Amino acid sequence: MTAQLNNDIQKELGGQGLRGQSAGVTALCTVGKTGTGLTYRGYDISDLAEFATFEEVAYLLLKGKLPTNTELADYIDRLNQFRGLPDPLKTVLEQIPADAHPMDVMRTGCSVLGNLETELSFEQQQDKTDRMLAAFPAIICYWYRFSHDQVRIDTESCEQRSIGGYFLEMLTGKQPSELHVQVMHCSLVLYAEHEFNASTFTARVCASTLSDLHSCITGAIGSLRGPLHGGANEAAMDMLSQWKTPQEAETEILKMLKAKEKIMGFGHAIYRESDPRNAVIKKWSKKLAENADDSWLFDVSERVDEVMWREKRLFPNADFYHASAYHFMGIPTKLFTPIFVMSRLTGWAAHVFEQRDNNRIIRPSADYTGPEHQDWLPIDKRA
Amino acid sequence: MTAQLNNDIQKELGGQGLRGQSAGVTALCTVGKTGTGLTYRGYDISDLAEFATFEEVAYLLLKGKLPTNTELADYIDRLNQFRGLPDPLKTVLEQIPADAHPMDVMRTGCSVLGNLETELSFEQQQDKTDRMLAAFPAIICYWYRFSHDQVRIDTESCEQRSIGGYFLEMLTGKQPSELHVQVMHCSLVLYAEHEFNASTFTARVCASTLSDLHSCITGAIGSLRGPLHGGANEAAMDMLSQWKTPQEAETEILKMLKAKEKIMGFGHAIYRESDPRNAVIKKWSKKLAENADDSWLFDVSERVDEVMWREKRLFPNADFYHASAYHFMGIPTKLFTPIFVMSRLTGWAAHVFEQRDNNRIIRPSADYTGPEHQDWLPIDKRA
Repeated sequence: MTAQLNNDIQKELGGQGLRGQSAGVTALCTVGKTGTGLTYRGYDISDLAEFATFEEVAYLLLKGKLPTNTELADYIDRLNQFRGLPDPLKTVLEQIPADAHPMDVMRTGCSVLGNLETELSFEQQQDKTDRMLAAFPAIICYWYRFSHDQVRIDTESCEQRSIGGYFLEMLTGKQPSELHVQVMHCSLVLYAEHEFNASTFTARVCASTLSDLHSCITGAIGSLRGPLHGGANEAAMDMLSQWKTPQEAETEILKMLKAKEKIMGFGHAIYRESDPRNAVIKKWSKKLAENADDSWLFDVSERVDEVMWREKRLFPNADFYHASAYHFMGIPTKLFTPIFVMSRLTGWAAHVFEQRDNNRIIRPSADYTGPEHQDWLPIDKRA
Repeated sequence: MTAQLNNDIQKELGGQGLRGQSAGVTALCTVGKTGTGLTYRGYDISDLAEFATFEEVAYLLLKGKLPTNTELADYIDRLNQFRGLPDPLKTVLEQIPADAHPMDVMRTGCSVLGNLETELSFEQQQDKTDRMLAAFPAIICYWYRFSHDQVRIDTESCEQRSIGGYFLEMLTGKQPSELHVQVMHCSLVLYAEHEFNASTFTARVCASTLSDLHSCITGAIGSLRGPLHGGANEAAMDMLSQWKTPQEAETEILKMLKAKEKIMGFGHAIYRESDPRNAVIKKWSKKLAENADDSWLFDVSERVDEVMWREKRLFPNADFYHASAYHFMGIPTKLFTPIFVMSRLTGWAAHVFEQRDNNRIIRPSADYTGPEHQDWLPIDKRA
């Protein structure tokens, strides 16, 4: 084999992104295996999305079992106590301009929290996670309201007791409807955990150096920011909002397919036939559309869904109907991915706990494709 | 095979941290293969450490070739222009207390820079990297001097033109000796790049989602913070500074070995016989000791080195003599790992460029060791 051919093969292999290769073990989640295709600690996602609140699922992921009534009430009490932001963190958030990327705000907010309330030993990992669960919606809403509306919100003054309800109340300053709180629970449950996706794997690589929890979560936020990972629901919303009728949507999608453009919110790296989270959020999106007297967005979304299946046999993933659902609840598109962070934090933290529990530093090898040995050349002799 | 036995095997495999498995390709670096065991783009580390300045090596890693005289002069001019910190970033650094972990300061500083000067397209990647190369020493020194000495330094007012000299001048407010600048060059060259170590791999996983450069570097800093990765030179210094004579060191090391305690700064995940960076930094540490009229630290270090080889056949890695070298230059121990960041930034960024150039999202699989299918249990029925 020539060196060039060998290099070409290596380059090809190197582009495979560890797909299908095991990088560790987990007791948290199966993707594409049993039941409807997604389980958290053995529980089917469709049961969790229909019956559980987000706080129940957070408890399940972080503590390993579903809580009793008393345990859940205590846990919610506990989370409610952690909503205040330290003054230095507020000052930092006030430095960040309105046109900053909201995921950069989350990344910085988490990092600064780690400066002010550092995890000093792994015994604090559950406490620090609970603090982040309560503080993340406060961080994004504080920055958003300050930079966009010049309002300094009091993140401790809130009637809503759930994380989903709290986010909506902090964002709008109004009491959300019961329907909206219910949809937030469901959405946060759907996004909570998904095995060794890129952001979770980032958190585990970081955890494998025995770094602190804030570093792990900060890194994970940075990875979720990437358009190939989080952000698909925002991209889907940007696309859908260009079209006013199902017919227009169909015409434009067909053009995009012909031009081989990527349609956001369809297909999945692991699922082959459908994304089990889609049916759940689609149902809620439909209900929200009826409730909001929507005349176009749900119909446009459904037509895109039909065309993609008819033309490409591609199915909507968890993100596609999230776009319309969030939009019907009045959430600005740029805050869609930060909601993903509020939810996936549970999965990230649970994976960090798991990595710490059976750790070896994650340090793979690489195939070298660079130049052979080079003789040193003094600077005056270089061209 | 019983389910338990299977789980045990899986757990064992999962603890292997991808060791020896290829996770991609690189043209940047070989570790433990040719020459003295470490090359950057084919150049042997001993040549680079002896003959090159850090800026030459940064140019080599980031742009693929060693610079000519003109190219190097232009590059240094360019880096010198980027030393100013935006006011909002200074305000953020002033919020971080003196007892914060300096790596948390670096992580936050990088993240905030990303809020204020976001990489909007990959065409900006070289510019953003150059900016970080100039700003990172400014960030750590601004925070350190403000929080420890209540001084707001002017990060643009500096005589030193190199990154190493700039760091020393900003830290002390004085002109460093030529010897100290030379050692900084060498140290920054030695730490610049090391293939798929955990922090670099973190940066590549993040890059594989097509996230921005600041997210990749912020994540890498978080991983380098872990005591299994960066921080070994700090730990070595903490250990060495307990002992006043070689004899005391020998007695204590023997006790530690007997108690099976880990001795920081020895052995390596990849190198088997010696770390090619050790001889270089040991030579400089000896010279600095003579220059500083040291009466104990170098001798203590050398004795520990001898005892470890005699008793365990373990060799000092790059970190061990870095401890004494940095100490002789008057650098506070807590700033050792941030220097590592200033240097490794070049390798991280070069790996991000490379990942972007031939990308597939890094998304491995996991072996599931959790419970089988669980039936949903309403909350009132749980125990």
